[in-house]
Amino acid sequence: MHQLTEFSFSKRFPELPLISAALAEEHPDFVPLSFGFPAKESFLIPLLSEAAVSALQTQGLESLQYTGGTGPKKVNEWIKKRSELRSIQSENENILVTSGSMQAIDLATRTLADPGDHVWIEAPSFFGAIRQFSLAEVELTSFPIDEDGLRVDLVEQALIEAKVKGKPMPKMFYVMPNYHNPTGVNLSLARRKKLAELAYEYNFYVLEDDAYVELSFSGGFVPSIYSFGPERVIYISTFSKIIAPGIRMGWAIAGEQVINKMRMLKSDGSTSVFVQEIVSQFLAKIDFEQHVQYLTSIYRARKDAMVRSIHEYFGNEVSYQMPEGGFFLWLTFPAEVDTSEFMEKSLKNGVGYLDGKHFYLQNDELNHIRLSFTFCDEEQIRRGIQRIAESYNDYKNNREVLEEAL
Amino acid sequence: MHQLTEFSFSKRFPELPLISAALAEEHPDFVPLSFGFPAKESFLIPLLSEAAVSALQTQGLESLQYTGGTGPKKVNEWIKKRSELRSIQSENENILVTSGSMQAIDLATRTLADPGDHVWIEAPSFFGAIRQFSLAEVELTSFPIDEDGLRVDLVEQALIEAKVKGKPMPKMFYVMPNYHNPTGVNLSLARRKKLAELAYEYNFYVLEDDAYVELSFSGGFVPSIYSFGPERVIYISTFSKIIAPGIRMGWAIAGEQVINKMRMLKSDGSTSVFVQEIVSQFLAKIDFEQHVQYLTSIYRARKDAMVRSIHEYFGNEVSYQMPEGGFFLWLTFPAEVDTSEFMEKSLKNGVGYLDGKHFYLQNDELNHIRLSFTFCDEEQIRRGIQRIAESYNDYKNNREVLEEAL
Repeated sequence: MHQLTEFSFSKRFPELPLISAALAEEHPDFVPLSFGFPAKESFLIPLLSEAAVSALQTQGLESLQYTGGTGPKKVNEWIKKRSELRSIQSENENILVTSGSMQAIDLATRTLADPGDHVWIEAPSFFGAIRQFSLAEVELTSFPIDEDGLRVDLVEQALIEAKVKGKPMPKMFYVMPNYHNPTGVNLSLARRKKLAELAYEYNFYVLEDDAYVELSFSGGFVPSIYSFGPERVIYISTFSKIIAPGIRMGWAIAGEQVINKMRMLKSDGSTSVFVQEIVSQFLAKIDFEQHVQYLTSIYRARKDAMVRSIHEYFGNEVSYQMPEGGFFLWLTFPAEVDTSEFMEKSLKNGVGYLDGKHFYLQNDELNHIRLSFTFCDEEQIRRGIQRIAESYNDYKNNREVLEEAL
Repeated sequence: MHQLTEFSFSKRFPELPLISAALAEEHPDFVPLSFGFPAKESFLIPLLSEAAVSALQTQGLESLQYTGGTGPKKVNEWIKKRSELRSIQSENENILVTSGSMQAIDLATRTLADPGDHVWIEAPSFFGAIRQFSLAEVELTSFPIDEDGLRVDLVEQALIEAKVKGKPMPKMFYVMPNYHNPTGVNLSLARRKKLAELAYEYNFYVLEDDAYVELSFSGGFVPSIYSFGPERVIYISTFSKIIAPGIRMGWAIAGEQVINKMRMLKSDGSTSVFVQEIVSQFLAKIDFEQHVQYLTSIYRARKDAMVRSIHEYFGNEVSYQMPEGGFFLWLTFPAEVDTSEFMEKSLKNGVGYLDGKHFYLQNDELNHIRLSFTFCDEEQIRRGIQRIAESYNDYKNNREVLEEAL
């Protein structure tokens, strides 16, 4: 055999930091507030079991092939009907069922953009999406959000400036309009309309990630960005938060040309028609409105428990915007705090969270943490917040001692 | 709203012809010999049903999350153990479970190659893989095969020539060593060894697609290419042909660095841990050797029926290499025949096949068709071959009349 020489892999792999909260769970009573895992209680196991048996009995031969069975059609019908609540009109040719919504983000990005093209995003934004954009080798620029979501006025300024100065225009703007990950804020109606208008005027696509839309604590909703600009918006959502992540099923809604290109890039073929059959039978068996109310009642109670504990253990030391739905609370510490600095201590104390820097392109802001209130029960949440407060106070006291000593 | 201007999509989309056999099935008694669908009889529906219920009952809470449950570990164990039969030694860090083996082809290609890089393949080769390579924007070169598979001697010549002349070297060679799709031939032991040596010497990876390995009519097997060069081979296989395509599950085995990069590109996350749980429980319930014997007994009988019908209806007009396993028979007509020219007639007569040109980069050879002997039963196969023969004879007679008239 010949001596091996070094192989030069594709240049597309980014050097992104590992997210350490995932790694350390050695504490016997660890409280994971890190990741967006649904509540165990949200999984309707007996119904899923019935759906699986019935799927195999009635559509087994078809749904075990590459394509076939009644499942895909019924899942499409459900998506169409449900999307009308977001003011979205769609036909089968506008819908692509994907293997989770992250796959839809990947397919949309590579459909719209080549390496070197520009994609604009919010700051902060979902780290998983940022990773997909990096792998697609696009250039990223981010825009701040406030309590009404993305600062669309700043986006417009930047578009005008880019056009005037001949700078690169974006091919895509990635935005999470409802219960934004990580901040929990909603994009206002006026800004949705304006963003769709900008997409038409400056000829880019909005990638509207609506993963959490069903999980509203008030029951209210605002029309989707898609409804204001169906020719320049790709709308994506997922069954991960309303049925289960383990079934790996999401969807995209867009113009037929976009959907056909996304389908061509989808190297896993049709998303499992076997699982689609199970999902379609599950959806036929449940009262979906009641199911959503059940989910939001769990999550509202957990969010309330988290808010109470934050007040109890942090007082006025921290701030946050009250989540009106979704999975996350974004906790803001005083500006001089670097939340990564008490991360290790927190993990040792038995609690996990994500430090805010992962949600920015350049680690712009260090004084936030993202807390998920969905997976842990109320008692765990209280213990978790208490432990973060203890770790933070230690860090703060040490820092004060250090500063005095200087 | 502003006037829409045309949007410029990613340049990565190839202009590949549609495969028309998929479209026309209006005949009341259509015989689809086109696509590689497993036999309906191969799906063990009651066992899959038991496995699904048991998966949900025992590992429901875990396997419905993004990651978790005992399924992935057990599936890995099965893959490791089974791969030893191919002389492959692997650990967990060498294995990536994928959503079908086509996804593995996509991930491997984009891990190894950037747009413009060179990938070498067999001629003919699997049209689905060719499509993935085109989407990855790599440059393709193909090498002929004979009754012992890929002409590795010609590959070596080309490597030497490229090196001497400073021409681009391949980053990857895609090859199907067992029951090649479409030709059904096997790569000889000597050529496997030689190809692995060339990969080391000239620093490229072999992508060894072993989708059909279990389906041997003789029960015999040759060690994998991977076994001769684990540091420069990515081995891929699939559950599609041995459990069901609808579960969408395949795998890749490679060095840890390659696997980690492939995992990073895998935008659908871990392949459904819910489905992995079902698969692991299914594998625990069956006698796999007996299952493989059951599958091959069905497919051997159907292959024999196809061969008999070919002799009956075509006599000595056509030739083929007898498949020793797998899904396909590659039928060769006299050199002057273009099989596309009696395709439409065949579809009208109620039979589908794939014309050979789809399996070549430049439609090099037009006188072949690929027949799948797995999906249709023996009686259907007989009718299908009879209909192809009728269409061919019509085509031939018309041509002779035409030639005489000229």
